[in-house]
Amino acid sequence: MVLLIHHPVSAISRKIRLLMAEKRILFVLREEEPWNLSPEIYKLNVAGELPIFIFDGNVIAGNYAITEFLEEVNPDVRLIGGDARQKAEIRRLTEWFDLKFEREVGRSLINEKVFKRFGKGLAPDSKVLKTALNNLNFHMEYIDWLCESRNYLAGSSFSLADVAAAAHLSIIDYLGDVPWEGYKNARLWYSKIKSRPAFKDILKDNIKGILPAKHYANLDF
Amino acid sequence: MVLLIHHPVSAISRKIRLLMAEKRILFVLREEEPWNLSPEIYKLNVAGELPIFIFDGNVIAGNYAITEFLEEVNPDVRLIGGDARQKAEIRRLTEWFDLKFEREVGRSLINEKVFKRFGKGLAPDSKVLKTALNNLNFHMEYIDWLCESRNYLAGSSFSLADVAAAAHLSIIDYLGDVPWEGYKNARLWYSKIKSRPAFKDILKDNIKGILPAKHYANLDF
Repeated sequence: MVLLIHHPVSAISRKIRLLMAEKRILFVLREEEPWNLSPEIYKLNVAGELPIFIFDGNVIAGNYAITEFLEEVNPDVRLIGGDARQKAEIRRLTEWFDLKFEREVGRSLINEKVFKRFGKGLAPDSKVLKTALNNLNFHMEYIDWLCESRNYLAGSSFSLADVAAAAHLSIIDYLGDVPWEGYKNARLWYSKIKSRPAFKDILKDNIKGILPAKHYANLDF
Repeated sequence: MVLLIHHPVSAISRKIRLLMAEKRILFVLREEEPWNLSPEIYKLNVAGELPIFIFDGNVIAGNYAITEFLEEVNPDVRLIGGDARQKAEIRRLTEWFDLKFEREVGRSLINEKVFKRFGKGLAPDSKVLKTALNNLNFHMEYIDWLCESRNYLAGSSFSLADVAAAAHLSIIDYLGDVPWEGYKNARLWYSKIKSRPAFKDILKDNIKGILPAKHYANLDF
């Protein structure tokens, strides 16, 4: 059995769930609040980070380790495919979202709107929100530009780069902060990703205490 | 020909240089100041980050992409070896240093001591330095603990995890900030890594305007 300890505001958790769903791996989810981790989590992952992937008593922690493990042991559905250069492009863009988007957009928005509220009972800082939303426009432009000449983010095929980008974006979209107007190509790309069967569970996600944006689960948004 | 655009205070640049040296790949280095990147860098890597790896006119940017590319196209010397679980342990620890150590220790120390000085002509903030140095003790304890029961960080063999950890630590050691006293196992491990032929060039590194700590290049420190 595969167990994933996750939380719906953890973008990397969403990425791993999507990855497993694309690879048709059956798994069980257990939710853990990132702002209130139990001591057990630190025993499973000294780094104190979600998600944690557990199979047959084996524990794998860390985005990099879990992602490559899933790709290696489930090669029937490849999400890092093509020749070495194509793989490098997939990994470059995956890292773009996992690190750069996360640092410039996701971390601030989620911290201000979710962590501060539920972890500390504080209101968001509007200055921090504004900077993150400005940064978001830069990332939307980049996605839009990539999708102008490509079917998917890293090229002609669906790949890990799409999974990573959609995982990060979907949380911001839940919060209602993605400015879809003006980014026609990005919107078309996201509607393709949203329509994939693997995305169904992500669209049912529920962050306790926060209602999703009205269009969140709508395939024709 | 392989060209790496790098800087000696970029830990990921050091990691890629060590990786190439271990794999006996010949390469040429070009230095670029991270606090004063030329417009050409943004053309090569939209993310505006070092290092940038160029071979036969092909550009690969991003830690994740370059690392896995080198491992795939140069399989004679494996740095992510063993079964799937062993590879996961190597990647978990590699990510520990590339992200966690970088975020909790490296970024602050390098920003305060190098970027602020050369980029902005400012003095370091002693409060920020103190927090980073406190965090460093936690990471030293973890390395020490791992090396108590293992020959190398991720197990019995030298791996990417050692390369990543040594790359990040070596910059902090250049600045004279690693508290070797009290971490006997970590020290023994680092002296093993320092003695590897691939490490020679790292020990000759020179950060313009900052002299290395006296023991920096000393194999018996």
